[in-house]
Amino acid sequence: MRKAIGVDLGGTKINVLLVNEKGEVISRDKQPTESERGKDYVINKIKSMIYKVLNEINLASKDIEGICVGFPGVMDRDKKATLYAPNLGEEWKKEVYLGSILEKEFKIPAFLENDVNLVAWAEWLVGAGRGTKTMISVAIGTGIGSGIVLNGKLWIGAHGIAGEFGHTTVLPDGPICGCGNKGCIEAISSGSGIEKYTKSILPEHPESMIWDLCEKDLEKVTVRLIHQAAEKGDKLATDIFDRAGYFLGISLANYVHIIDPENIVIGGGVANVREYIGKPMKGEFYKRVLPQLKDKVSFSWAELGEDAGGIGAALYVLYR
Amino acid sequence: MRKAIGVDLGGTKINVLLVNEKGEVISRDKQPTESERGKDYVINKIKSMIYKVLNEINLASKDIEGICVGFPGVMDRDKKATLYAPNLGEEWKKEVYLGSILEKEFKIPAFLENDVNLVAWAEWLVGAGRGTKTMISVAIGTGIGSGIVLNGKLWIGAHGIAGEFGHTTVLPDGPICGCGNKGCIEAISSGSGIEKYTKSILPEHPESMIWDLCEKDLEKVTVRLIHQAAEKGDKLATDIFDRAGYFLGISLANYVHIIDPENIVIGGGVANVREYIGKPMKGEFYKRVLPQLKDKVSFSWAELGEDAGGIGAALYVLYR
Repeated sequence: MRKAIGVDLGGTKINVLLVNEKGEVISRDKQPTESERGKDYVINKIKSMIYKVLNEINLASKDIEGICVGFPGVMDRDKKATLYAPNLGEEWKKEVYLGSILEKEFKIPAFLENDVNLVAWAEWLVGAGRGTKTMISVAIGTGIGSGIVLNGKLWIGAHGIAGEFGHTTVLPDGPICGCGNKGCIEAISSGSGIEKYTKSILPEHPESMIWDLCEKDLEKVTVRLIHQAAEKGDKLATDIFDRAGYFLGISLANYVHIIDPENIVIGGGVANVREYIGKPMKGEFYKRVLPQLKDKVSFSWAELGEDAGGIGAALYVLYR
Repeated sequence: MRKAIGVDLGGTKINVLLVNEKGEVISRDKQPTESERGKDYVINKIKSMIYKVLNEINLASKDIEGICVGFPGVMDRDKKATLYAPNLGEEWKKEVYLGSILEKEFKIPAFLENDVNLVAWAEWLVGAGRGTKTMISVAIGTGIGSGIVLNGKLWIGAHGIAGEFGHTTVLPDGPICGCGNKGCIEAISSGSGIEKYTKSILPEHPESMIWDLCEKDLEKVTVRLIHQAAEKGDKLATDIFDRAGYFLGISLANYVHIIDPENIVIGGGVANVREYIGKPMKGEFYKRVLPQLKDKVSFSWAELGEDAGGIGAALYVLYR
C-alpha cells in the first residue's frame, strides 16, 4: 500500500505521521517544537522524528512516496521554502529551504503547504467531507483558518493565500484583530476573540459564575472556563457563545454565497463548545443563506482531531 | 473563423450578438423584451432575432457552433431549462426549456448560463481581465452580481450559485435587502441601495443640491441625479458615494481573502460614478486586505459595457 509522511509543524508541537493511502496512521511521533532553541535545532528534530517513525515499522525512506510539511505561514511552494512563519521565531521570518533540506536528507520528494489547507484536504478525503466534491473547512482555535476544496482539488488561490476566512470583516467597526483591522471574524469568534470579549464585559456582570471559576482574575479567563460556566447554567457564558455563533453564522453565509459548497466542516478547539456555539451559528446561517441553498448546504463537525494536519500532509503527497 | 451566438435575455431588453472567436461582434440586434406579452412571445422574438443576425451576414445556423443564452436567474444546465427568472414574468417562475427549444429550432448546441457569470467570462477572455488566470468580476447596477474565473475556468459552484457576492453581509444590522436579510452589500452599495439611502437622509439635509435636481420630489432621486449634484460639489452627494465605496471596499476585501484572485473587474451602471466611488472603495480595500496581497491584487474597470453579457454568452459556446 502507498505511504507518505506528513509533518504538522506548529508553534508548540511537531506531529509526524506515517500514513497509508487509506489515511490510516501506521506510525507516529509527537514532540514539543522548542523553537526557542533555533531553526537548525527544529529542522534536526524534524529529521530525527521522520527517521524514528520510519524505523519503528522497519521502513527506509525509499519505501515511501514523499514528505509534506504543513505549517502556519507563507511559503514559496516551487522553491520549497518557508517564507514567513513568525510563530516559529525570528529565524523563520525569512526564507528557510525546509522542503529542499528534507529532499536532500531523505532523497524523496518533499512539499510544503499551509496547515489549514491540509486539514481541509484530510477532512475532505477521509474525514467529515468524504463523498462531497466541493467543501469548505473552517478551523476555529486561537485564530480562525480555513481551506477550500473545489471539485476535488485544493484551491489555494492565485497567490497561495485563498481561504483567509478568518480575516473577512463581519462587523466593520468591531474589535481590533491581530491583523490590524476591525471586526474580522477571527477577532470575534476565535478562542482569543471570545476570551477578549469576555474579559471586557465580565466587570459589568458580577453575578456571573465565570468570576468564581477564574478565581476573580480576569487574566485566567479561557474558553474552557466559559464552557464550564455555561455547563452550570451561567447566563452570561451562554450569551457569550451565542454572540460568537451568531457572527460565525453570518460570515459562513458570506463564505457559502461566494464558494457555493456542498458542505461546511467545522473543527478546531472551539468546536469543543459545539453544544453552545452550534445552534446560534446554524440559526443565523440558515436565516441568511439564499433560499436556493437552504436545503443544499450542510454542516459537519471535523472528524480527524489533532491528527488532521499531519494526515492531510501525508495525503497531499499521495493525492493532489 | 469560429463563431457563435450570444443572447443576453434581460427583463427590459434582449441583446443578440453574433461573435467571432476573437470576441468581435460581427452582427447584432437589440429589442425590448416585452415580457408582459408572455413566454411564447419572448421565445419567438429570440428565435427571430437569431435568424436576423445570421441572415444579415448571409449565414445559416449550421455555419456557427452554437447559441448560449444568459439571463438573471436560476437554471438547470443539464436539462437546458430556466427554472426561475422572476423578472421575466409569472410564466418564468417555473421550468422553461429554452435551451432545448433553441436546439430544436436551429439544430446546433444551445446552453444556458447566468448573465453575470457570462459578463465575467467575457471580461476575462477579451476585456479587462485579459492576461490573468484568476479573476473576480463584480457588476454594480440596480443589484450587485458577480462571476468568478479560477485558473481559466468559470467557477459556478456545487449548485450553480457561486459568486453571490451581492448577498454577502457587510453590516449585520444594516438596511433590509431584497433577499430579506439585513446589510447585504447589494442593499447598501447597489444603485437601488444608494437611492434608498439618499431618500432616507435627504430630509435631514435641506441644503443639498439634490433637492433642486429632483425637483423636491424624493421619488425622483436617482444615482444619476446624485452624480450631477456631486459634479457640482454637493457635499452630501459625495458623502453618499463615499459611504457606498467604503462598504464596497470592505466586502471586496472579504471576497479577495476567500478567492485570492489577481484582479477585480468592476462594471455595471454604478461604475459610471467611478470618480466618486473608486477612491473610497480602493482606500478601504487596501486598508483591509492582508499585507501579502496588497501589491498583488489590482482593480480594473470593465471594458465591454452593455455587450459584455452577449459577448460572454457567445464565447461560452466557443471556450468553456
